[in-house]
Amino acid sequence: MTSPVEEDEVLERIRGMVGNGIEAFGLRDDAAVLDLPSGGPLVASVDSVVEGLHFELALCSPADVGWKALMGALSDLAAMGATPFAALVALCVPDGSGEGELALEVMAGVAEASVAAGCPVVGGDVSGSAVLMVAVTVLGTVDPSAGPAVSRTGARPDDQVLLTGPCGGSAAGLRALRSGTGSGQAYRRPLARLREGRIARLSGAHAMIDISDGLALDLHRLADASRVGFRLDEVPAAEGATLDEALGGGEDYELLIALSGSSATTLIDHFEREGLRVPACIGTVVSDPELRLLGDGPLERLGWQHRLG
Amino acid sequence: MTSPVEEDEVLERIRGMVGNGIEAFGLRDDAAVLDLPSGGPLVASVDSVVEGLHFELALCSPADVGWKALMGALSDLAAMGATPFAALVALCVPDGSGEGELALEVMAGVAEASVAAGCPVVGGDVSGSAVLMVAVTVLGTVDPSAGPAVSRTGARPDDQVLLTGPCGGSAAGLRALRSGTGSGQAYRRPLARLREGRIARLSGAHAMIDISDGLALDLHRLADASRVGFRLDEVPAAEGATLDEALGGGEDYELLIALSGSSATTLIDHFEREGLRVPACIGTVVSDPELRLLGDGPLERLGWQHRLG
Repeated sequence: MTSPVEEDEVLERIRGMVGNGIEAFGLRDDAAVLDLPSGGPLVASVDSVVEGLHFELALCSPADVGWKALMGALSDLAAMGATPFAALVALCVPDGSGEGELALEVMAGVAEASVAAGCPVVGGDVSGSAVLMVAVTVLGTVDPSAGPAVSRTGARPDDQVLLTGPCGGSAAGLRALRSGTGSGQAYRRPLARLREGRIARLSGAHAMIDISDGLALDLHRLADASRVGFRLDEVPAAEGATLDEALGGGEDYELLIALSGSSATTLIDHFEREGLRVPACIGTVVSDPELRLLGDGPLERLGWQHRLG
Repeated sequence: MTSPVEEDEVLERIRGMVGNGIEAFGLRDDAAVLDLPSGGPLVASVDSVVEGLHFELALCSPADVGWKALMGALSDLAAMGATPFAALVALCVPDGSGEGELALEVMAGVAEASVAAGCPVVGGDVSGSAVLMVAVTVLGTVDPSAGPAVSRTGARPDDQVLLTGPCGGSAAGLRALRSGTGSGQAYRRPLARLREGRIARLSGAHAMIDISDGLALDLHRLADASRVGFRLDEVPAAEGATLDEALGGGEDYELLIALSGSSATTLIDHFEREGLRVPACIGTVVSDPELRLLGDGPLERLGWQHRLG
């Protein structure tokens, strides 16, 4: 049980939690003032997670929710090859008892992820709500001397399709949590592949996307945006994950990378030098946009897409 | 009645609505890529509005909600003297029938406000939820040749306190809507004082804050941040607003500006040249942080502050 506290007091405690030495007076003022860390363009994205839709508090802690909200947003920067420098967090906590504490617990997870990813939280907003909701905006930049941000749109015929890690771990983790047979680490504490995305950009990646809604759906999206097709040879499944989970589970935050064979060699060398897991080549890009194959059959658009009635 | 549509389709329609020629591939990709419009620092803020807490759909349209969400966020940039160049919108729409249409109606209001304020929407996210919620992140910049962004913290003893317009109009508008006696224009369609904030910065303002939670509370916050007190001589109330509404109503988005007498003269000249409403001088800053007066009595911390239980 906690006593009611004013919003200003909660914000003051959050400031202490995410204070990180950045030269911004954002958390104390109306807005944050920041210097761009490079002469390159600004890369910005927003992502939100909602109780009952993206998570249930019976299966993960408020800190897990905060961690996932920031990592999920950062994954969009990873997919552009961008390096994050700031995040802003809009937090809505359910009315009733204990929401001041709940806000602080969520922000503790945000702060942990912020440290892990090297991305300070520079602004925020706390409101009441019917359900817990966290919307995170992340700001990054790319070093302009090493090529532009990587889009979804640039995949070319004969490109190789690399995947930074096996998929389905998040869905399998959620299943394990539901059945009480595991800790669901991959579900509760995913990692944005920021170093991997940056190296892919430096290696000359033509197109990238992160696996947020499922390998199959996100690969289709990359192919749609690039007006190409693909032949998928294999689907690396995470330990304990089914093929359906690997294809359609989502929230794995691995990166799909389309690039030439010679760039793939450069990339793999660079990953090895940095001690990162070597990505698997799981298929190739083809020019016919209608051709979307897994082995010999069509690949369905499996994956998580919210239906708006 | 509408048929269910996929999230990707709603996003495609939103893209058409907010398309505005900015050189960003954000709404089509994972993240937006933007050039900063000046060599100055980046100014960033996030603000959210939640159904049942900040608005009721019985009293305003979904487009009004979208308009207010963007203008409320932009007001934080106005209070720093910053000029906006991009917004990102996280939209959560209630599950059930019609939320695809609801999302589009909210975004129509966001797009209207975006045009009115000259701030393009470059990124977004749509989710389901139990209640309608809109979180808006705004990005702006300040021209570094004309001084830094204005903080809450710089008010000095003997500064004049200016207010860009009368307060309480939003609260009075809400009251009129509830009693069916008015259109509630000031409540439904507030304006962020972006030009006014910029001119105040150029005129040498020491400190600024926007009236988002109520004149009294926001003036106390400015005084707290600046470690000063104040004597408030008058409280300009909007037409039809009570003194309580003017002091504690909130969401007026007028600017409180603390600055020297000579800067105030410069500011008023500049406002007149630009055809803007001339701000009222409503009080003075004093050195004793304990002294917080309205006329001869203490000014209570009236205003809208969410209590977190």
